[in-house]
Amino acid sequence: MSSPIIFRMRVRYYETDQMGIVHHSNYIRWMEEARIHAMRNGGVSLRTMEEEGIQVPVTSVSCEYLRPAHFDDVICIEILPRRYNGVRMELDYRILREETGELLATARSGHCFLDTGTGHPVGMKRRAPAFHRILCGMFSNTEGKDG
Amino acid sequence: MSSPIIFRMRVRYYETDQMGIVHHSNYIRWMEEARIHAMRNGGVSLRTMEEEGIQVPVTSVSCEYLRPAHFDDVICIEILPRRYNGVRMELDYRILREETGELLATARSGHCFLDTGTGHPVGMKRRAPAFHRILCGMFSNTEGKDG
Amino acid sequence: MSSPIIFRMRVRYYETDQMGIVHHSNYIRWMEEARIHAMRNGGVSLRTMEEEGIQVPVTSVSCEYLRPAHFDDVICIEILPRRYNGVRMELDYRILREETGELLATARSGHCFLDTGTGHPVGMKRRAPAFHRILCGMFSNTEGKDG
Amino acid sequence: MSSPIIFRMRVRYYETDQMGIVHHSNYIRWMEEARIHAMRNGGVSLRTMEEEGIQVPVTSVSCEYLRPAHFDDVICIEILPRRYNGVRMELDYRILREETGELLATARSGHCFLDTGTGHPVGMKRRAPAFHRILCGMFSNTEGKDG
Repeated sequence: MSSPIIFRMRVRYYETDQMGIVHHSNYIRWMEEARIHAMRNGGVSLRTMEEEGIQVPVTSVSCEYLRPAHFDDVICIEILPRRYNGVRMELDYRILREETGELLATARSGHCFLDTGTGHPVGMKRRAPAFHRILCGMFSNTEGKDG
Repeated sequence: MSSPIIFRMRVRYYETDQMGIVHHSNYIRWMEEARIHAMRNGGVSLRTMEEEGIQVPVTSVSCEYLRPAHFDDVICIEILPRRYNGVRMELDYRILREETGELLATARSGHCFLDTGTGHPVGMKRRAPAFHRILCGMFSNTEGKDG
Repeated sequence: MSSPIIFRMRVRYYETDQMGIVHHSNYIRWMEEARIHAMRNGGVSLRTMEEEGIQVPVTSVSCEYLRPAHFDDVICIEILPRRYNGVRMELDYRILREETGELLATARSGHCFLDTGTGHPVGMKRRAPAFHRILCGMFSNTEGKDG
Repeated sequence: MSSPIIFRMRVRYYETDQMGIVHHSNYIRWMEEARIHAMRNGGVSLRTMEEEGIQVPVTSVSCEYLRPAHFDDVICIEILPRRYNGVRMELDYRILREETGELLATARSGHCFLDTGTGHPVGMKRRAPAFHRILCGMFSNTEGKDG
C-alpha cells in the first residue's frame, strides 16, 4: 500500500438527513465499507478471517467533516495504512467528492484482532501467519510492523 | 393482548432524509423496536429466547405510508397480534403521531421460529412450552393458536 | 424496460445483525438504491427531478424474505416496472444472491409524485413531460400508462 | 450543566452486527440522540432552532470503544458540555451499561451554527440571543463562553 487504495461509491438517498446533506454517521459506515474493500483487494478477506475465528472490531474512530456530501455524489475514499504491529491496526482515510476533487472529510480508525471463541486479543503472527504477512506488506511503508 | 400494546418513541434526527421527513425504511425498524418491547412486556424476552437457542426472523413485512413523520415527533405504535400457531406469528401495527392522533402508517410483519443450531424451523409448543403459553395468551383473541 | 434492469451490490458489514444475516430493514434500502439506479440509467435522475421541484416519496412497500443474505455476498436486484399512470408508480423487485442464483426475496414499492413547494400530488404529464415520456417508455410493457 | 445530563435508552436489535455486538457506527447516532435530548431538556430545541433558520451540523466526532454493548442492554449516556463560544460547541460523552455501570465508550463531538438560507456560520449571540444565553448557562462551568 505505498499508494493509497481507493474505494468509489455513490451517495444513497437514505444516507441524507433533513439538512439535505449526508448524515455524519454514514461516513463511519463508508470507512468500514472502504476498509473491507481495500483489505479484500489486498488479499485479506474479512469474511475468511471471520470464518477462521478472527474478528476485527473497531477500537476507535474519528472524523473531521470539512464539506458536506450530497445525494448522488460519487465519493472516493482513499485508505492510507498507518500502523500495524500484529496486534493492532490503524488506518487513515481521505474522503473526496469525485466530480470536484474537494476533500470532504479526513478520518482515522483503530482496530484489534480477537479470537471469536475466547473473545481475547490474538497476535496475528502466530494465529494467522498468512494474513499477517499480507498485512505487513500493506503497511510496509508505515512505522511499526512487528508483533 | 385484547387491547393493543403501545410503544412510544421520539423521532431521531438521523432517521430523517432530505425530503425533511422520516425515511420510509425506519418504520420497518420501529416495528421491530415496538414488537420486541411488546413481547418483553408480555413476558417473552427476545434476548432470553435467543439465549435459549431460538431465533425469530422476519419472513415478510409490508407498510402503507399515509402521512409523513417528522423529526422530534412523538410516535405511538400500536401492536395488534394477528395470528400465532406455534410455528408462525403475524402482527399488525398502527403508527400514529401522538400530538395530533393522526394515523401515519399501517403495517404488518410475519415471523417464524428457528433453532439457532440447525437453522431449522421449530414448533414452539414442544421446543419452548413456557414461551408458547404466553404467546397463546397474547394472541388469544385472534384466529389460530395451535401448533 | 421490457427486460428487467439489474442493480448489483455487495453486502456491507454494517447491514448484518446478530443472527449473522442481513437485517431485514436493509432490503427496503437496497430497493431504493436499485430503483434510483435504474431510473438514472433510464434517463430519469431523481437528483434532477428534486432540483426541478418534484419529490417521489414511497407510499407502500412489501417484502417477502425467502433466504437470508450474508455479509460479502454479491446481490443482484432485478427491477420490474409494474404500473405507471403519470400520478402513481409501482415497481416489483427480485433480490438474488449472484453466486448461487438463489432468490432471496421478492418485493414491491409504490410511489407518488409531489410538488416540493406545495406538498401536493402532481400529474407528471403536465408538470414534467420529458420525464413522463421516459417513464412511459420504461413501463411500456405494463398495464396503465396514461394520466 | 454542572452535573452531567443523562440520556437513557435500550439497545435495538437492528443496531447489532454479526459479531453479536452493537455496530460501532450506532454510538455516533446515540450521541446525537442524547445531545438533542439534553439540549431540548435544557431549553434549546433543535426543532425550533431549525424552524428559526439555524442548523447545527457536526464538524467532528471521535469515539473510543472500551467494551461492547449488546442487544437489550440499557445504556446511559452522560453528556458533558466542554466548550461553547457562540460560534462553536463541543461536548464530551460517557457511554455506560446501566446494569453493571461499566464504561463502554468515551466520545466527543464538535458543532458549528449555520444560517439555513446562506449556509454561512452564524454567531449565536446576535442571531439567536435567547438560545445563546441558555447555551452559556449550560456550558457555564467550562472554559470559553463568549463570541
